[in-house]
Amino acid sequence: MRVLGVDPGLTRCGLGVVDGLAGRRVVLVAVDVIRTPADGDLASRLLGIGDAVEGWLDQTRPDVLAVEQVFSQHNVRTVMGTAQAAGVAVLAAARRGVPVAVHTPSEVKAAVTGTGRAGKDQVTAMVTRILDLPTRPRPADAADALALAICHLWRGSAAVAPAGGRTMTPAQQQWVEAAERARRAAGRRHGLPGAG
Amino acid sequence: MRVLGVDPGLTRCGLGVVDGLAGRRVVLVAVDVIRTPADGDLASRLLGIGDAVEGWLDQTRPDVLAVEQVFSQHNVRTVMGTAQAAGVAVLAAARRGVPVAVHTPSEVKAAVTGTGRAGKDQVTAMVTRILDLPTRPRPADAADALALAICHLWRGSAAVAPAGGRTMTPAQQQWVEAAERARRAAGRRHGLPGAG
Repeated sequence: MRVLGVDPGLTRCGLGVVDGLAGRRVVLVAVDVIRTPADGDLASRLLGIGDAVEGWLDQTRPDVLAVEQVFSQHNVRTVMGTAQAAGVAVLAAARRGVPVAVHTPSEVKAAVTGTGRAGKDQVTAMVTRILDLPTRPRPADAADALALAICHLWRGSAAVAPAGGRTMTPAQQQWVEAAERARRAAGRRHGLPGAG
Repeated sequence: MRVLGVDPGLTRCGLGVVDGLAGRRVVLVAVDVIRTPADGDLASRLLGIGDAVEGWLDQTRPDVLAVEQVFSQHNVRTVMGTAQAAGVAVLAAARRGVPVAVHTPSEVKAAVTGTGRAGKDQVTAMVTRILDLPTRPRPADAADALALAICHLWRGSAAVAPAGGRTMTPAQQQWVEAAERARRAAGRRHGLPGAG
């Protein structure tokens, strides 16, 4: 399964594609951060992000687009732009019939670090380790996009919108269960409350 | 000048088109409310709104799309969807090279009623009167979309994003100045503080 993770934002929008299959490692396909000028008008900025996401969808052909859930409790100054960037990414996927999954920030952190309260550094460190990268992906938006994609692979397609119309294959289900066991084991090792 | 006003929302998205020229009345071209099912997935809903706005842009060919500014202080439960619906509408305009203008709710209320603190009923009543409609546009989202379009005509294109690349013609400028005088006069009649 190939997942395009989107860490939405107007100024910096992280895009990361990973491949994962039952019993195999998770592999980096591509990662980048799309930037739009902070002094640009909203229409041009959304167009820049829409074009970039469409280009990535067409070139990398993911099975799912995974995007971070935006909450209104986020940074008030930027949250509207973040929500709109996410909306534009979701629309691009919908236009191509690519199912969309939404994951909360704590789901993403928990999936890659074992705790929903992990900091950005910890997420970046784990993404680097999971994908066996020679250097840490920079900026944090790049690592966050990859974390989202990995989170989706490991949590399975439970969060995919029903209208996406795809269910997990037995192999995917097996992979999810294995990842779940690994996460529980990681939780035990780090002595997390409620784990084990 | 023809303006497509968009009152963004996931469940109900108001679309209203009006024509206005220097020295002429403002005339209704079309108005409708796009609805998407509250239990639908985000991707399908944004696609429904995107398709509707694109259809309206292609059929009514407005000079400007005017959309309401979404603030994070709005209803927290629905504000993210509202911002995303607005983003999708802005993107549709940007893809066609149609300039986008953003107006705040109080600018819209002030433009059509003379006060930024007007209630929905007052806005609907004034829209009905300005456009000389036989009945009040329903639901409120339809009236709000028309109010946005009228507001843009009367406030002029000052709020149009610079990248829109259009400036006002002398006729438009004249119209804006006449509207401004009329608004100031209306403010005096209603005894608003600071007017006159």
